[in-house]
Amino acid sequence: MFGSGVVVDPDRWHEFEAGWRCPAGSALCVVAPRNVEELRSVVRRCVADRLTMVPQGALTGLVGAGVPDDVATMVVVSTYRLKAIRHFSSCDGIIIAESGARLSDINALGQPHGLMLGIDLGADPSIGGMVSTNTGGSRLVRYGGMRQHLLGTQVVLADADATLITHLPKVRKDNSRIGWSQLVAGAGGAFGFISAASIALDPVPVQQATALIALESLGALPALIGRLRKECGELLTACEGMSANAVEAVVRHRNDIRQPFSSGVSNYMVLIELSTSIGTDFLDLDALLHSKLASILEDAALAIVDIVAMHPEKAWALRHAISAALVRDGEVIGLDISLPLEQLPEFRERWKAKLAAEVPWTILCDFGHCGDGGLHFNLVCLDSGMSSEQSLKIRHIREMISSEVSALGGSFSAEHGLGPANAEIYSALTPVREQQFVSAIKSLIDPHKLLSRALPA
Amino acid sequence: MFGSGVVVDPDRWHEFEAGWRCPAGSALCVVAPRNVEELRSVVRRCVADRLTMVPQGALTGLVGAGVPDDVATMVVVSTYRLKAIRHFSSCDGIIIAESGARLSDINALGQPHGLMLGIDLGADPSIGGMVSTNTGGSRLVRYGGMRQHLLGTQVVLADADATLITHLPKVRKDNSRIGWSQLVAGAGGAFGFISAASIALDPVPVQQATALIALESLGALPALIGRLRKECGELLTACEGMSANAVEAVVRHRNDIRQPFSSGVSNYMVLIELSTSIGTDFLDLDALLHSKLASILEDAALAIVDIVAMHPEKAWALRHAISAALVRDGEVIGLDISLPLEQLPEFRERWKAKLAAEVPWTILCDFGHCGDGGLHFNLVCLDSGMSSEQSLKIRHIREMISSEVSALGGSFSAEHGLGPANAEIYSALTPVREQQFVSAIKSLIDPHKLLSRALPA
Repeated sequence: MFGSGVVVDPDRWHEFEAGWRCPAGSALCVVAPRNVEELRSVVRRCVADRLTMVPQGALTGLVGAGVPDDVATMVVVSTYRLKAIRHFSSCDGIIIAESGARLSDINALGQPHGLMLGIDLGADPSIGGMVSTNTGGSRLVRYGGMRQHLLGTQVVLADADATLITHLPKVRKDNSRIGWSQLVAGAGGAFGFISAASIALDPVPVQQATALIALESLGALPALIGRLRKECGELLTACEGMSANAVEAVVRHRNDIRQPFSSGVSNYMVLIELSTSIGTDFLDLDALLHSKLASILEDAALAIVDIVAMHPEKAWALRHAISAALVRDGEVIGLDISLPLEQLPEFRERWKAKLAAEVPWTILCDFGHCGDGGLHFNLVCLDSGMSSEQSLKIRHIREMISSEVSALGGSFSAEHGLGPANAEIYSALTPVREQQFVSAIKSLIDPHKLLSRALPA
Repeated sequence: MFGSGVVVDPDRWHEFEAGWRCPAGSALCVVAPRNVEELRSVVRRCVADRLTMVPQGALTGLVGAGVPDDVATMVVVSTYRLKAIRHFSSCDGIIIAESGARLSDINALGQPHGLMLGIDLGADPSIGGMVSTNTGGSRLVRYGGMRQHLLGTQVVLADADATLITHLPKVRKDNSRIGWSQLVAGAGGAFGFISAASIALDPVPVQQATALIALESLGALPALIGRLRKECGELLTACEGMSANAVEAVVRHRNDIRQPFSSGVSNYMVLIELSTSIGTDFLDLDALLHSKLASILEDAALAIVDIVAMHPEKAWALRHAISAALVRDGEVIGLDISLPLEQLPEFRERWKAKLAAEVPWTILCDFGHCGDGGLHFNLVCLDSGMSSEQSLKIRHIREMISSEVSALGGSFSAEHGLGPANAEIYSALTPVREQQFVSAIKSLIDPHKLLSRALPA
């Protein structure tokens, strides 16, 4: 159907049917085009035969947009062979990469020139996947998300011609075109196949300084972040919150990671990172962070329990160990939300109490990117396997939380994007008129509703 | 027709009919709604009567998108009364402003909290205008353009219902919605009325350091910028190029501004700015810049003639005086282009020679944001008033240059956006299939083609 060079060896299909922390599916076929013309041929064939397509990157997504469903009717279109670097300029700080190129490929190329794509994730995603989810990560407070780096894309529409539209500027400043590239970004693959993207790179830091702050309560968080933002300016690179439950899980499961505070695990810990491209000959970053934190510690209003300076590697090892540690304690129910900082502490305390009352068989182990209001409001289910009644309860809670954060100006999908895992919530919470508008635009890109994994048609 | 509270006093209409460096037009009516419901009423009325609307901000645009044509059939819809600040959070660094709020309003509010909108322009535009043009300015190399700051918008469509679509997040991280806000951005008002925008703010610097570099030729520019990008990292805030002709015009017309180099005006000058939110107690920015420039001066390959440290106020006074000085020498023919840095020197030298041969009655006085490849490739016409033959010649040159920069991966409208002034070039240079796609999306927003000033329908 697709030509032998394009179809992936069926013995390997299972590798393309299982997502990371998503239910595995079953494909009708798995194809991997080697160039844009092969991609267009695949799309033409699928459109002619009305086959649903699943654009797939590195399978590191968390909402299932890249994974087929389980009835073997969908064609998985992997971009793993479509990975040429088409352009790189160190003086402009711009790279044009095909969608299957990995974040690590970009960074390896940029590094000798002092350049990187400043999006820090616990995975090595493809560029196409990063654009499709508008991924954010741990350093968004400094560098922004994928959309802030995106200068343009090349897209294949899911129409009979597999129409190719290309805007891949080699400059940071181009207002000669309409911003359809940015419409395609963050759509989870529902608005066309991204075959390539033009991306602005960031300067690589040469110094990092990190510390952990122990808070008596989360109530001080807005004031703390506001103060750090003001005093550390452009050097503030990450503010990662970690609940006591999350840290305790890490310490329990990892012999090599110790509880960071001699006074014991406090209610909430915040990892702060500063970084800079300026060397120690002009700026002593450790001394700067130490001084800022010393004055913060003196501020009684913040009720800070303790502060420890920590080597960046150790601090991040603790933070990055959380996800894997929680999985060892039970099934993880993930909620990828964000909230305005002023609302975050009250929201968290209220829901912590509510969850303890309503789902006492779970434990709240929240953590996340609190510098940008992000919160992985994750629950660990202590029972082995949820009953259908328990699943229903969790579903109801997920809906209530999603609805509440949206009403507060936050998000029910802060950084994981849109996919089958949250399509129902999208339908329930997005104003009907907006959904109609979005569907009308989608019908121009995908008239036969064949890119249907991410968004309800 | 529109209700007396909404229509602007006809004695004042002339203020809304004349653009900044654009030909003045003539309106059928000038209205200025005070809130979103009044705006929707105006749109409903115009759609019912099939009247063309001109969304208008602070009239600081340079491509005519906010100015009516001259036959008095268009309704000017000014946003100047629609200027409420709906939300401000200093800890999140986010503001939600109605479209008529000015850049200076945002900065006045943010300043006490160490926040600003890091887009530096020679004007005080409205927020709606900034979003509509995706404006860039002199510090894009550091802060990015408007799109990089835009978290969401509220838009009124030009349909019978004046449909209101709202996505105004109070967080930096929200991937729960499709990116139609970014589609509306940079469309010059052709994709709906922006009534409000949610915007991420930047930290205010407390130190600035500037210097002027005199280059023997522009050939060294890519290497110079690449090196500055690498060595100054996140502190590099502006790199502004100034040709000898541009600087000489300033010195000739301004008694208070002197030629900066004792050795005379060199072929090309580059203003470099570093800035930081870190105080002098931790970082001596002047010493840092001095040291970096001293080592750059030693690099024989860059063939740098001279470097002078200059007070930021003086350096920017020279740079900002260029536009006004050129106008005093004759009619200015502006070309707002950008090029990949590696291509820029050869392009400029070749076109300089070509222009001297083909339009010897002009003089090339180029300057601009060379750190991001931007170039105001401006010509000053020495004759008083161009003949129709001369105008045709200029038109032909504009087309050739636009076509060439587009082919090189640059832009024929780097930062001024799309409007009547460049609509023909847009039509000529944008691939037909893309124009059809864009028109199809536009027809969902503006089914009767009533927002027709920016883009050909």
